[in-house]
Amino acid sequence: MKERALIARLLAPIATHPAARGLLDDAAVLTPPLGRDLVLTHDMLAEGVHYLPGDPPGDVAHKLLAVNLSDLAAMGARPLGVLLGLGLSTREDETWLAAFTRGLGEACARWGAPLLGGDTIAGLERAVLGLTAIGQVAPGAALPRGGARPGDEIWVSGNIGDAGLGLVIARAPPLKPDAHQARLIEAYRRPEPRLALGQALVGVASACMDVSDGLLIDAERIGAASGVRMTVRLGDVPISRAAEAAGADRLALATGGDDYELLFTTGAGRGGEVAAIGRRVGVRVTRVGAVEMGAGLTMIGAGGDVIMLARLGWEH
Amino acid sequence: MKERALIARLLAPIATHPAARGLLDDAAVLTPPLGRDLVLTHDMLAEGVHYLPGDPPGDVAHKLLAVNLSDLAAMGARPLGVLLGLGLSTREDETWLAAFTRGLGEACARWGAPLLGGDTIAGLERAVLGLTAIGQVAPGAALPRGGARPGDEIWVSGNIGDAGLGLVIARAPPLKPDAHQARLIEAYRRPEPRLALGQALVGVASACMDVSDGLLIDAERIGAASGVRMTVRLGDVPISRAAEAAGADRLALATGGDDYELLFTTGAGRGGEVAAIGRRVGVRVTRVGAVEMGAGLTMIGAGGDVIMLARLGWEH
Repeated sequence: MKERALIARLLAPIATHPAARGLLDDAAVLTPPLGRDLVLTHDMLAEGVHYLPGDPPGDVAHKLLAVNLSDLAAMGARPLGVLLGLGLSTREDETWLAAFTRGLGEACARWGAPLLGGDTIAGLERAVLGLTAIGQVAPGAALPRGGARPGDEIWVSGNIGDAGLGLVIARAPPLKPDAHQARLIEAYRRPEPRLALGQALVGVASACMDVSDGLLIDAERIGAASGVRMTVRLGDVPISRAAEAAGADRLALATGGDDYELLFTTGAGRGGEVAAIGRRVGVRVTRVGAVEMGAGLTMIGAGGDVIMLARLGWEH
Repeated sequence: MKERALIARLLAPIATHPAARGLLDDAAVLTPPLGRDLVLTHDMLAEGVHYLPGDPPGDVAHKLLAVNLSDLAAMGARPLGVLLGLGLSTREDETWLAAFTRGLGEACARWGAPLLGGDTIAGLERAVLGLTAIGQVAPGAALPRGGARPGDEIWVSGNIGDAGLGLVIARAPPLKPDAHQARLIEAYRRPEPRLALGQALVGVASACMDVSDGLLIDAERIGAASGVRMTVRLGDVPISRAAEAAGADRLALATGGDDYELLFTTGAGRGGEVAAIGRRVGVRVTRVGAVEMGAGLTMIGAGGDVIMLARLGWEH
C-alpha cells in the first residue's frame, strides 16, 4: 500500500481533530490549554521484541497507545494528542493495516488522545512502531520519580504479573485458552493506562512511575531517583485470581514486565485518601511497602525474612 | 550497549534542558511559551532507505534532526525541542553511537532544539530512527499548504537538485571527490532546515511546504491543497554551480528529492519584500512560477513550450 493511499484511506479518517489538519500539511498545529505544562513522551514497539508476530493488529495498536499514555499517567497528565511513526515490512498488508488503524482509532477515542500526525515508512524487515504522546498538567504539578521520602508508603495499582504470565501463555497458546488464560493474554496485549488514577494522584503522590520492566526493578528506580531505600513486602503484592489459578510464583510475578500499573509513594497516614481515590476512579490500589533512609531495594518475605534477589526485572 | 548505559553515558549529557529532567523520568515536562500555537511533526529515517549504511553517524543525526526541523520551518515555527526514537541493530556499535549522539548534540545546539526525551530499542535488522519535533508559532499564524491563490507567485529557497545528485555520487563515490562532488554529497547528507526563512515568511507567504520528494511533485501538492494550478518555469529553477559542473539535466534536478528547501507562494507584487527577507536571513530566494486558476502542474520550458512529464518526483 502506497504511503499516500495509506494516509488518505486509513489514517486521515481517524485523524479528525482540527490540529491534525486532515494530515495534509507538513505538521500538526495545536492550540495548547493556557497556562499548563506539556508532558511529552515517545515509546517504540518492534514486532518480535515488544509484541508477537501473531498478535491481533488492533491489539498492537492498543498497546502502542497504552504504553505511551501510561507514561503520561505516571506524570499525572491528561492526553492532548499523539503522533504516529509507522515503520512497515511487507508483512503488514492492507488487511493488517486496516485492522491496526481501526484499533488505533478506537484507542485514541477511548482515551481522548487524538491522532495529530506522524510518518510512515516501508521496506523494513519487521514492523517498528513509534508513538509520541503529548499531555498536559497543571504548572509544576507533574508527578516526579525522585520525590519519595523516608516514612512514605509505597502503593501499586491493579494486579502485578498478569502481563508477564500472559506473554508466556501467548508464546505457546493452548488450543482453547480457559477464561483465566484468556484474561492473562489480554493483560499482555491490551494493558490499561491508569490515566484517571495518575491525574487524581497529583498533589497526593510524592513519587510515581509506571511499572514496565517489573515491580521490583521499577521500585528500585524510584528509590535511586529519590535517594531512599524501598522496602517491598512480597506478601502484599496484589495478584489476580487468574495468576493464582496459574500457580504462579509471587516473586516471578513481581519481576515480570509489561504491567503498566502505577507504582507510587505517598506521605504516611494518607491511606484513606488513596483508597478513596482508587474507589473513585475504579482502580484497586494496594499498599505494598515503605520508604526508608538508605539505598536499594529490600524484599520482605511472608515470614518477615529478607529475600535476596539475583534479578529484579528487565534490564534492557 | 545496554539501554541504561546508552542513556546515561551518551544521551543524558546532551539532554541538558531542564524539561528533559536528565532523562530520568517517565516523560519530559515543558512549560510552553504563553499564548502560542504548538507545531508538531514526526519523521523517520531507516538505514538503506533514507540514508546509506556508510554515511557518517554524525551526518545521520544531523539529517534526522534537519528533516524534522524542515517541517517546522515550512510552518513558520521556531523549535522548542525534540524527542528521539532510536531503533538499533547490532551494527550501531559504541563507536557509531558515540559519533551519532555527538552529531545530534551539535545539531540540537545549532538549531536551538534541545533533546527532551525519547526511547531506545535494540534487536532490529537495521537502524530505524524516529524524531518528533515540537515548535511554536503565533496563534493562527502557521503557514498553510493550502493557501495559494490565483495570481500568487511561486518561490523556492536555495538550490534545487543538489541532494539528489549527491545521493547518486554517494552511492558510488569516486576515490577522491572533487570540491563540487563533495558539496553535492554534503547537500544529501547534511540538509539545512530553513528555519529563519520560514519564520520570516509568517504573514508574507500564502502557502508553504518543504521540498522533500522533488520540486515539481511538491509544487503539485501545494496546488492540490489550494485548489489551483501551479505553473513552474524550468529555466528559472535555481541550480548550483556544482550541479552545473556535474552536467545535470534541469528537469532531473527538479524531480529529485531530499532538497529540504522551502517552496512557497506570495501575493503578486511582494517580490521586493521576499528578496529583502532572503537577504536578511542569508538564503537565496528565487521566483520560479505563478499560481493560476485550475488544477495540476504546468511546466514551461526555456522556449516557452509546455513540457509533458511522466513523473514529478518521489511517490512513496
